[in-house]
Amino acid sequence: MTNTQVTLIQIDNYGPWTVTPEPRREVDLQTLQSRLYADLSQLFGNREGYVFFTRFDNMVAVTNGLDSDAHALIQESVDNRYPVSVSLSVAVDASPARALGVATDQLQDAGSAQDRGRTEILRGDPLADPERSGDDVRIAHFDVNDATGKYTDELNEFDSFINIEQGYAELMRHMRTDHESLSFFVGGDNIIAVCDALEAAAYREAIEHVRDAVGVDLKVGVGTDRTAQKAGMAAKHALETCREEGTDVEFA
Amino acid sequence: MTNTQVTLIQIDNYGPWTVTPEPRREVDLQTLQSRLYADLSQLFGNREGYVFFTRFDNMVAVTNGLDSDAHALIQESVDNRYPVSVSLSVAVDASPARALGVATDQLQDAGSAQDRGRTEILRGDPLADPERSGDDVRIAHFDVNDATGKYTDELNEFDSFINIEQGYAELMRHMRTDHESLSFFVGGDNIIAVCDALEAAAYREAIEHVRDAVGVDLKVGVGTDRTAQKAGMAAKHALETCREEGTDVEFA
Amino acid sequence: MTNTQVTLIQIDNYGPWTVTPEPRREVDLQTLQSRLYADLSQLFGNREGYVFFTRFDNMVAVTNGLDSDAHALIQESVDNRYPVSVSLSVAVDASPARALGVATDQLQDAGSAQDRGRTEILRGDPLADPERSGDDVRIAHFDVNDATGKYTDELNEFDSFINIEQGYAELMRHMRTDHESLSFFVGGDNIIAVCDALEAAAYREAIEHVRDAVGVDLKVGVGTDRTAQKAGMAAKHALETCREEGTDVEFA
Amino acid sequence: MTNTQVTLIQIDNYGPWTVTPEPRREVDLQTLQSRLYADLSQLFGNREGYVFFTRFDNMVAVTNGLDSDAHALIQESVDNRYPVSVSLSVAVDASPARALGVATDQLQDAGSAQDRGRTEILRGDPLADPERSGDDVRIAHFDVNDATGKYTDELNEFDSFINIEQGYAELMRHMRTDHESLSFFVGGDNIIAVCDALEAAAYREAIEHVRDAVGVDLKVGVGTDRTAQKAGMAAKHALETCREEGTDVEFA
Repeated sequence: MTNTQVTLIQIDNYGPWTVTPEPRREVDLQTLQSRLYADLSQLFGNREGYVFFTRFDNMVAVTNGLDSDAHALIQESVDNRYPVSVSLSVAVDASPARALGVATDQLQDAGSAQDRGRTEILRGDPLADPERSGDDVRIAHFDVNDATGKYTDELNEFDSFINIEQGYAELMRHMRTDHESLSFFVGGDNIIAVCDALEAAAYREAIEHVRDAVGVDLKVGVGTDRTAQKAGMAAKHALETCREEGTDVEFA
Repeated sequence: MTNTQVTLIQIDNYGPWTVTPEPRREVDLQTLQSRLYADLSQLFGNREGYVFFTRFDNMVAVTNGLDSDAHALIQESVDNRYPVSVSLSVAVDASPARALGVATDQLQDAGSAQDRGRTEILRGDPLADPERSGDDVRIAHFDVNDATGKYTDELNEFDSFINIEQGYAELMRHMRTDHESLSFFVGGDNIIAVCDALEAAAYREAIEHVRDAVGVDLKVGVGTDRTAQKAGMAAKHALETCREEGTDVEFA
Repeated sequence: MTNTQVTLIQIDNYGPWTVTPEPRREVDLQTLQSRLYADLSQLFGNREGYVFFTRFDNMVAVTNGLDSDAHALIQESVDNRYPVSVSLSVAVDASPARALGVATDQLQDAGSAQDRGRTEILRGDPLADPERSGDDVRIAHFDVNDATGKYTDELNEFDSFINIEQGYAELMRHMRTDHESLSFFVGGDNIIAVCDALEAAAYREAIEHVRDAVGVDLKVGVGTDRTAQKAGMAAKHALETCREEGTDVEFA
Repeated sequence: MTNTQVTLIQIDNYGPWTVTPEPRREVDLQTLQSRLYADLSQLFGNREGYVFFTRFDNMVAVTNGLDSDAHALIQESVDNRYPVSVSLSVAVDASPARALGVATDQLQDAGSAQDRGRTEILRGDPLADPERSGDDVRIAHFDVNDATGKYTDELNEFDSFINIEQGYAELMRHMRTDHESLSFFVGGDNIIAVCDALEAAAYREAIEHVRDAVGVDLKVGVGTDRTAQKAGMAAKHALETCREEGTDVEFA
């Protein structure tokens, strides 16, 4: 059984900040957001966590192995280096979607995302060490079959992008609705899903669903381990096996 | 009439690099991609251009005002600071979609995105200074009405994200198909579209289309100027007017 | 005759900020300082200026070609992305040291570096375009003869560093006192000096002075141009000529 | 007794790279160097280490608590994100200077810093966990008395800088020669020294030496702990005590 620890990261009062006193230059906002994401990737990643950029003002991390002190230190490090601060909310559940639901509730209970007084919240209980196991995190790494040959080298780049986006939009909804899993676009033609303890059949069915709905062909490598980093790397190796063997679903 | 100069940015041979000799750590790839995007935002932005992250390995920029030398210098600066290089292809057209189509063709003609020998291509003819005018770039800045109140402060963060994504996916397709415009998600609940010389009715119709299709309520501010930076800032101010006046479409 | 435009960059109220309410983690301060310097290098560098890190909380830039608007935009960009703001003071003189003196005076007149109310000052008059010429900036690029063979590959790294530092300390004082020039260590065994219109004899004499005082052997390439970027690149090429010809002083 | 673990970080074959095939733009080299330093600060700092920029192409870190795997991962992370790679050499000794001497020897034995074939060396034996204690690292944090009042707000910025540099140059030599300690300028008026198990008298004597030699008045806070991070933070708090009490030397 999986036991996913999810952290919701929310920039405090970000919307109002971007337009106060005047709208800030878009180029600086883009730089700020993508660098904050890069730094959080390193801060969580150096502790074997994964962060997904999601909406940039709200990010989602898989943080098995990070305790409250590690979260507080990350919060402090952001505060020391950015003009904005972040709130963090942690929750654990077999279902990644339910974990994120609880994390969201905890943060909403503390106040609105646009409440000036609600800053640097840190809520929730990380998974204690004795409760952790080698099956806690399941990561599925999807990519598009021959994306370069079929899209990048053939279509207008925007149409390539629309195809990839459609595949992603369909997969994210399906995995959320049918499998309580959270899927994130991570660039190129790659989607990483944080999953419940799904079997191979579920992945096959998801791939078929996306192919039927929008005509995008996916394959997937799946890894399971104590941390996002380890499960994710196992998933990447399994995806390489798909590539070599011409298969659709491989478990590490 | 608009005269949009578009630059397609493509990381050379990136897919193979990410898995050679072994799959590289996801956290480092995420950091690399988002920092490269941040740097390109600054490099183009310091010359009044806009860059959109799109798929991260392929990015799209609006570059009116940047000549070939400026493009070459950006290419050199990336080469001096990253383990990967980028190819750039520039094209100009009243229709942003057609401009990107030409830019894509030029790059595809030079070889595959995964061709090891095809690196640091620089193709295409920027708009010469005497041909430039104050109507060249039209930027539309959309956001979601009361996204914080209706989504962020109410739903599971992933469901908020699904809603925003659905709104984006619908708008990007519609604007591409019906209006030859390129729409990019830029974080939060914001979408920036690079448009042809559309009238207010077209924006109203696009907003209705998205509302009918997926139930997401958008509003939009539109700006027109010589450069992406100036047009984009005008669009932001127009969007502020929407917010103050409770209107759906405002031109700067 | 040179006509050096110098900009003094000062982080506002930085000392107190680093210890309020508690001393901040050194690792975050180091990251903040070096990234701010990297960003300023790009922000000024994209406009052909050079920035030197100096003390990190006070930096010195050579900014021929940057007007007040460019300075204001850099200030705004820092404000949008950092938890600290910067003040800028610009001055022009044939003597780089006198220019920096005027720039310093202007900033001191506006208040103390630790005055909470003195933020984002922008003072001074950049050189107007009609007054600019191709002789405005003279850059001398020094390095240590065979630093790798004599120091890096032979001594305890700290003793290599002490030797390089001694060479630098001696050169900076001498160039300041005798030649009104500003010398900056830029990493490795490299020192870049912003100079008055010195002749070859002055550089030869400076090299001898450093050899006699601390036994460190330098050579230097000198370039002159409209901007720091162009003069600096010419100086680098001249230094390559020194390397190839075994000479001590070369002018581009 | 202290037991300092020191890591020498050396960019592989950096000198030749900076001028091949042509001298690279200084602004990009400065950006590369300072960002690499910032990233190493975070990579080591997230594991409670300290990194000092030293010459930028050679950096020195205090790494008690980091094993070989942690070093290898940092090396891999740099390789994944930069156009250059780094070699690392680790050594442990009661004397920081001797530890760095051994670390330097190990790297020199592996080949020249400008040997193209000598890349990503990882040498040396980190301190094993059972041998570690709470006295392993002693950090002394010096600053200049009233630097803002006496220098920054009074002198030409370059003369302020010369004063600070002179104080640093004198202290670094003295602490190296008389106390086997390694002192690093960290910006502003701050110097951090990694020390042997010195008593208060030794710090007093060092402060007097610098005052006599170059007229710069220092004070110092000293901390001792298992890691650089903890010892360094204790030193900062001790330095705050100096400030409040008007004393010259304080131990945490």
